[in-house]
Amino acid sequence: MNEFELIKNYFQKLSKKSPSSLNLNDDVFFDKKNKLVVSIDTYTEGNHFIDFKKPDLVIKKIIRSSISDLICKGVKPKYYFISGSGNKKSFSKYNLLKISKSLNEEQKKYKIFLGGGDTVFSNKLSFTITSIGFANGIIYRNKANVNDDIYVSGNLGDSYFGLLILKNEIKVNNLLRKYFINQYFMPNVQFKLTDKLKKFSNTAIDISDGLFTDLDKMINMQKLSYKIDLKKIPISNNLKKVLNLKKKSKINYISRGDDYQILFSASKSKRGIINRISSNLGLKITKIGIIQKNIEKSIIVDHNNVVIKLKNKGYFHNF
Amino acid sequence: MNEFELIKNYFQKLSKKSPSSLNLNDDVFFDKKNKLVVSIDTYTEGNHFIDFKKPDLVIKKIIRSSISDLICKGVKPKYYFISGSGNKKSFSKYNLLKISKSLNEEQKKYKIFLGGGDTVFSNKLSFTITSIGFANGIIYRNKANVNDDIYVSGNLGDSYFGLLILKNEIKVNNLLRKYFINQYFMPNVQFKLTDKLKKFSNTAIDISDGLFTDLDKMINMQKLSYKIDLKKIPISNNLKKVLNLKKKSKINYISRGDDYQILFSASKSKRGIINRISSNLGLKITKIGIIQKNIEKSIIVDHNNVVIKLKNKGYFHNF
Repeated sequence: MNEFELIKNYFQKLSKKSPSSLNLNDDVFFDKKNKLVVSIDTYTEGNHFIDFKKPDLVIKKIIRSSISDLICKGVKPKYYFISGSGNKKSFSKYNLLKISKSLNEEQKKYKIFLGGGDTVFSNKLSFTITSIGFANGIIYRNKANVNDDIYVSGNLGDSYFGLLILKNEIKVNNLLRKYFINQYFMPNVQFKLTDKLKKFSNTAIDISDGLFTDLDKMINMQKLSYKIDLKKIPISNNLKKVLNLKKKSKINYISRGDDYQILFSASKSKRGIINRISSNLGLKITKIGIIQKNIEKSIIVDHNNVVIKLKNKGYFHNF
Repeated sequence: MNEFELIKNYFQKLSKKSPSSLNLNDDVFFDKKNKLVVSIDTYTEGNHFIDFKKPDLVIKKIIRSSISDLICKGVKPKYYFISGSGNKKSFSKYNLLKISKSLNEEQKKYKIFLGGGDTVFSNKLSFTITSIGFANGIIYRNKANVNDDIYVSGNLGDSYFGLLILKNEIKVNNLLRKYFINQYFMPNVQFKLTDKLKKFSNTAIDISDGLFTDLDKMINMQKLSYKIDLKKIPISNNLKKVLNLKKKSKINYISRGDDYQILFSASKSKRGIINRISSNLGLKITKIGIIQKNIEKSIIVDHNNVVIKLKNKGYFHNF
């Protein structure tokens, strides 16, 4: 039993008396009676973001990461609360100006409002963001059906590639450098899809930890598995270009987290409406696999249906 | 302009478009339409609590501190969310057991439920608590009237005295030691008063920073001042005893924070109902002064109406 499981076990017991906590096994808290949806996450320097050299971008990243939890449940975020712990350098006048400007831009882009917060001095920089929305219903985890199609919005992998560039582990030209770093800091959260999701998806999650980890999470209480077609996993033209150029395998870049795209399952009967909405919104939604009974293992197949063995199993639970 | 003012200025601008934020100048966020009340606070080791040697007690202290913000507004807390940042030592199996047990006890005592949370590894220990309640209305700050009586619930100063004992700055016998330390860790939050407050108070706040600092905050947007009668400020028999014994002045112990009592103002016509409710609930509510026009300065008077000069002005703004 690792530390995280331990914590989950200890906390889960306490949430049992409140059905709204969804047993601490979903992306949000949902109080149906009060129509309240809440998501809370803490982001620490050196863990969720490398450093605070670009406060404007870090703030955008964590706000989007937080509201993404609501959006993937089909819920529009309305308020956010920000609690920052940091030292005087982190909260210098210059940085506060940048933070304030970024928050203002995000407020306009996503129609959200600052509800409140707290600022505490600490040598270790961290932010806790609480996002709140209101809804009559949400799209839960663990509601997939056998033979459901599995879809993902947008492209995967760009954000991770941006992180590698920031860490100087990969070098690309300036234009691509800028592109990938922007994707890392400002993930393209699918705000426009929020209201539509309920029309077709059975279950959904946002991809924060990585495609396969989040697939596992999406159905973690169900006796189901998945089959994913690697070649169908959507990546950007820029990522395609550099993977070719650097002779890197796609499989090592599309499940490393921070994508903040929406992963969902839907019945085959919904293919028409999904295509229509995708084309109406001008928003990429790609079918990447299917949900199966768990008498079959979860697998990823390459061209010619060959099962891929994964080098880095760290990100792939339940194999 | 100090750092805190700076932060407030930068954040306040962002909250302007959302009336629910109460201009970031109250204890809570209140969305009237959705009847939602939210309070968020971050507590860090070395700042809000000395250390984590007694995790069970620290957890009680911060939970009570958080729900106190709702209670003083006349709102019953319903859910709490806890986001902890700490290292493996802070979140050892032993500590998690203690934390879990304490949370369970607080849940029962205050009828609250764990809604969710997050755990992040960090070398610096901190907790962010979000408390949520539902209400048609709240008791705001800055709604005092001239000639209002000023009241406080319970006793003041015990918690600060407990802190001094914990820091080895004062020595007392074991019985008193236990009493004051318990008051520090487990402040007697006036949960029973929550529903009654609306019946008589015009404005209210909880005393977290200290009586005079919080008095200033309670009326900070109003052109008002206060006159407080030192001898009326309620202290426990135990505190009375040690102050006599150690020849210490009361004034230096009753406004140092962490009391989590309710400070409120009420019209003189409410004296009857306040006395009745106080005696029905078996709960001390003491009239300690009056609200005046600010052509007169805020003052504290001793016996014979002599104005007290305060040595430690750090805690007394606007003098």
